[in-house]
Amino acid sequence: MEQVKLTILGSGSALPSGNSFPCSQILEWRNKQFMIDCGEGAQIRIRQAAVKSNRLGHIFISHLHGDHCFGLIGLISSFGMLNRTADLYIHSHGDLKKLMQKQLDYFCTELPFNIYFEPFHPKKNETIYEDRTISVSTIPLKHRVPTAGFLFREKQKDRHIKRDMIDFYEIPVWKIPKIKQGADFETASGEIIPNRLLTTPPDPAKSYAYCSDTMYFEKIIPIIQDVDCLYHEATFASTEAVRAQKTMHSTAGQAGKIARKANVKKLIIGHCSARYKTHQQLLTEATNEFENTALAEDMKSFYF
Amino acid sequence: MEQVKLTILGSGSALPSGNSFPCSQILEWRNKQFMIDCGEGAQIRIRQAAVKSNRLGHIFISHLHGDHCFGLIGLISSFGMLNRTADLYIHSHGDLKKLMQKQLDYFCTELPFNIYFEPFHPKKNETIYEDRTISVSTIPLKHRVPTAGFLFREKQKDRHIKRDMIDFYEIPVWKIPKIKQGADFETASGEIIPNRLLTTPPDPAKSYAYCSDTMYFEKIIPIIQDVDCLYHEATFASTEAVRAQKTMHSTAGQAGKIARKANVKKLIIGHCSARYKTHQQLLTEATNEFENTALAEDMKSFYF
Repeated sequence: MEQVKLTILGSGSALPSGNSFPCSQILEWRNKQFMIDCGEGAQIRIRQAAVKSNRLGHIFISHLHGDHCFGLIGLISSFGMLNRTADLYIHSHGDLKKLMQKQLDYFCTELPFNIYFEPFHPKKNETIYEDRTISVSTIPLKHRVPTAGFLFREKQKDRHIKRDMIDFYEIPVWKIPKIKQGADFETASGEIIPNRLLTTPPDPAKSYAYCSDTMYFEKIIPIIQDVDCLYHEATFASTEAVRAQKTMHSTAGQAGKIARKANVKKLIIGHCSARYKTHQQLLTEATNEFENTALAEDMKSFYF
Repeated sequence: MEQVKLTILGSGSALPSGNSFPCSQILEWRNKQFMIDCGEGAQIRIRQAAVKSNRLGHIFISHLHGDHCFGLIGLISSFGMLNRTADLYIHSHGDLKKLMQKQLDYFCTELPFNIYFEPFHPKKNETIYEDRTISVSTIPLKHRVPTAGFLFREKQKDRHIKRDMIDFYEIPVWKIPKIKQGADFETASGEIIPNRLLTTPPDPAKSYAYCSDTMYFEKIIPIIQDVDCLYHEATFASTEAVRAQKTMHSTAGQAGKIARKANVKKLIIGHCSARYKTHQQLLTEATNEFENTALAEDMKSFYF
């Protein structure tokens, strides 16, 4: 069964530390790549993590705080030097284009590819990307500026055809796609072979939810219900609960609580404040609420 | 004798590699700090190299290519979060302010310190900074866009006073500064004690020249003559001499030649192209022209 690969490029929060770059990750899924947030140094981490970025066509920016987008100009500039030709789509709050255009015009002249800014409304839960196999929708979050998380959802996959049945009924190749999608087969003699005899159920469709930055916000629960993997920010430990509230971030315990209430399969916590030398305490607090929790680390890959 | 400390934050060229961040360095000198260029990730390297940046007041940007300035917005933004209050001066081509203002207004609201953009003319060799002990002047370079290197020059230091002579002639404390600057001393009885009996010569004034990016350009030689340390770009090996010419960069051999002709004491080469997995060949080529050559490496400090 094909797995989804999530590589953390930057697991840090607003102030980067030596080990934790600002927010960025790469999702590799069904032979495509998606970037989520692009903090300073994302292009460097891509090289350090030995991620090939040639299939990266869409970048999703959760909100316009510097630690989530200052890496874009460098990434784009380097793509230009590397003679990338494929279109690049940047999905974000509408202000981003205005903020970047002047620098793009000055520093990135004669780019050999097109950049398309695709604005979305962070307060709406809507589909902002869709292809044959995957859709991406926004998850309205609650932070100091308009912010959206992203829900990646695989579309229902094809059923698996039984090889021996193709041979037995001499099913022509051109009919197979329809059968994989659930159609019955009619033999030359007019006999109807029901689909359940010809196929086995498809692999379950995967889903991934990215929620950063946000304070504890229960309204996201129905949207992210049952996802295979949830990345949720956990900027603070419970001792800083007041500061979390004030800066509209979450504690690790709150991240765990959201994961439990949403019945997700796996939780990854990140965006941990640079004030913590290790993140063990944060992991413990999240795990107390939701057992299957892992810590994000720069250049670490997760599979689900 | 007080030494100058030069820490390389980024030794790479346009395309960063996993080991070599884009251009940036910190000069620590006479209890002050100066930053030269500020490529993406400079603030991260500052933390990784454990450089305290609390005495950094002036940043000098050689030219407006992204690998020399994309790190500014992140650095400034973090300074804001760290509650820096000291003024920050950015010396650069005049376009920089226009390019950054919109992002500063958007991302760095309520900065607790002032930023002053100090434009200079890259084609002129002029003093752009001066304090009681150090001056900085521009070195017009030859690159694809207007570019200046920087010459840091310590002013003549005070002479060393002989402790035993102070005691012997009972010189009052308030007269010592003048004597350190070369004055003679008149005793109570009217006897003139010549300065050479009271003092020993000062430590020699140090100098540092930064020349990146530039093609081989002999006009800089009289400006950087005899400096204690020269940082010169060496983007290419001799096999890429044609490309060096075309992109207006230098080969390592050319960097060595400049160092030899300018009679500098030490040469550091950097800005090496990411195409070279190791820079040993570049070091060899430079050393063939000028023996006392060292390779820049991220987070390495040089003392002179």
